[in-house]
Amino acid sequence: MTIAVEDRYPTRTAAPTAPIPRAEPAVWSGSPRGPIDDTTLDSYDAKGFLTVDQLLGPKEVAAFQSELARLRSDESVRADERTVVEKQSQDVRSIFDVHRISGLIAELAADPRVLDRARQILGSEVYVHQSRVNFMPGFTGKGFYWHSDFETWHAEDGMPLMRAVSISIALTDNYPFNGGLMLMPGAHRTFVPCTGATPSDHYKESLKEQEIGVPAQAALTDLATRHGIEQFTGEAGSALMFDSNSMHGSGSNITPFPRSNIFMVFNSVDNALTDPFAADSPRPEFIASRDFTPLG
Amino acid sequence: MTIAVEDRYPTRTAAPTAPIPRAEPAVWSGSPRGPIDDTTLDSYDAKGFLTVDQLLGPKEVAAFQSELARLRSDESVRADERTVVEKQSQDVRSIFDVHRISGLIAELAADPRVLDRARQILGSEVYVHQSRVNFMPGFTGKGFYWHSDFETWHAEDGMPLMRAVSISIALTDNYPFNGGLMLMPGAHRTFVPCTGATPSDHYKESLKEQEIGVPAQAALTDLATRHGIEQFTGEAGSALMFDSNSMHGSGSNITPFPRSNIFMVFNSVDNALTDPFAADSPRPEFIASRDFTPLG
Repeated sequence: MTIAVEDRYPTRTAAPTAPIPRAEPAVWSGSPRGPIDDTTLDSYDAKGFLTVDQLLGPKEVAAFQSELARLRSDESVRADERTVVEKQSQDVRSIFDVHRISGLIAELAADPRVLDRARQILGSEVYVHQSRVNFMPGFTGKGFYWHSDFETWHAEDGMPLMRAVSISIALTDNYPFNGGLMLMPGAHRTFVPCTGATPSDHYKESLKEQEIGVPAQAALTDLATRHGIEQFTGEAGSALMFDSNSMHGSGSNITPFPRSNIFMVFNSVDNALTDPFAADSPRPEFIASRDFTPLG
Repeated sequence: MTIAVEDRYPTRTAAPTAPIPRAEPAVWSGSPRGPIDDTTLDSYDAKGFLTVDQLLGPKEVAAFQSELARLRSDESVRADERTVVEKQSQDVRSIFDVHRISGLIAELAADPRVLDRARQILGSEVYVHQSRVNFMPGFTGKGFYWHSDFETWHAEDGMPLMRAVSISIALTDNYPFNGGLMLMPGAHRTFVPCTGATPSDHYKESLKEQEIGVPAQAALTDLATRHGIEQFTGEAGSALMFDSNSMHGSGSNITPFPRSNIFMVFNSVDNALTDPFAADSPRPEFIASRDFTPLG
């Protein structure tokens, strides 16, 4: 039984409700020193994201590409419930909880280049809330509509506050035209409540195409008009770190150039999950970990 | 009855056939002097496209935007067979043959900034093979898969050779992320035959989503690897001119920023249509004009 906490960010409501200004900071005070310089940290605070060129060098990129190829062709991984396989092509699209499946990716989560950046932003010890690798094919890549991850993590996982940061490490080149992530800089300061009650076992559908937890077009138009849109592009090995409440999405990819990346979410140990704020039961452990042991 | 002409570019074949090197030039000799400088013309020859910043000034852009809004809300235009209305939303998506519907757009087709560029590239008098205005919504814009226009014009309209040029004039800003046209520079020198016989009245489907006349993934991968991909971006009023055999396509648009443009195809009067090379009967006049009277 969890102690009831006040819900600052009500969502999945029956009637549309107004956007809610964010209460907590994006960069938490008392942050330990870390690899992020002051200018970049200020920019993260203002925009809700930062990029790191060549977080991984070419040899590391090659090593992780091999590791992903190995995981993808491993029959036991393919059969695992944590693996998302596309129905039509039978291709592996995502492997969740991958830092518990791959030793190499576990090491990456604890690598100071990654972990110390997450600690620096969140101002505390952190643990891995979610990890996955994504394989997005060329020609038929579908993209993902606008959303705030925090909206889902709050509603369905019971994450109390916006004190989590995601890192997406590109293992293939991201061009402006092959479905790279788009973000609205500064929109992380606004929480957009979404309408509609969460169905049971919603995650089984929402990992493919989200219909509940989708911001209204009027709210997106307002945010995009105020903040504009930026896109994450860069060579394989570059990384994007973004706030849990960043408004982001991606378009389709009809180019022949596929994309793959490693994705990890760090949550502050002071922001451990409670009961879901707007769902009957929490999502499975491999999507939203309840092991709050600090990393490193 | 048309005199039989040799088919240099067989397509819609039962079995896959190899790409065919282009025989004819992109910039035709004997070109009259025109507004395109030599460097830009050389680049068009090499890449198969060129862009013009501010082809239309801000006041002209506003005038054409008003004209498009007027056409879009005109009930007789909406009821016209030349207008494509999206089933679900009942929104107007395209109006074909628009240079015969709008006096303002007829004037634009004959404007020296447009017409003289087309004459200069094609080295002859020209006529309008097709014209249309396009309205692409924000949030749900679907994009269009890779194709060569010439492949369709040859197969379904009986256009003998690659001696046509298209102009797309943006009436809204084109960002890298709201579904702007992608092109493979240099790919206009290769004709990619497509497999599959053309169904009757194919145009009724192909204007929405093309399934016949689609290049194979292997051919696209080869072209993209050799030539790369460039995207047409720019402010409202800028224009893209591209060769009839340019390999091009567009991704989806999930941003709140809609796109609209004016699109015109100029064909050389020395390249007048014959019978279709790979279809039972030619497409309607409003999609492929058979009035070969030179413009201007």
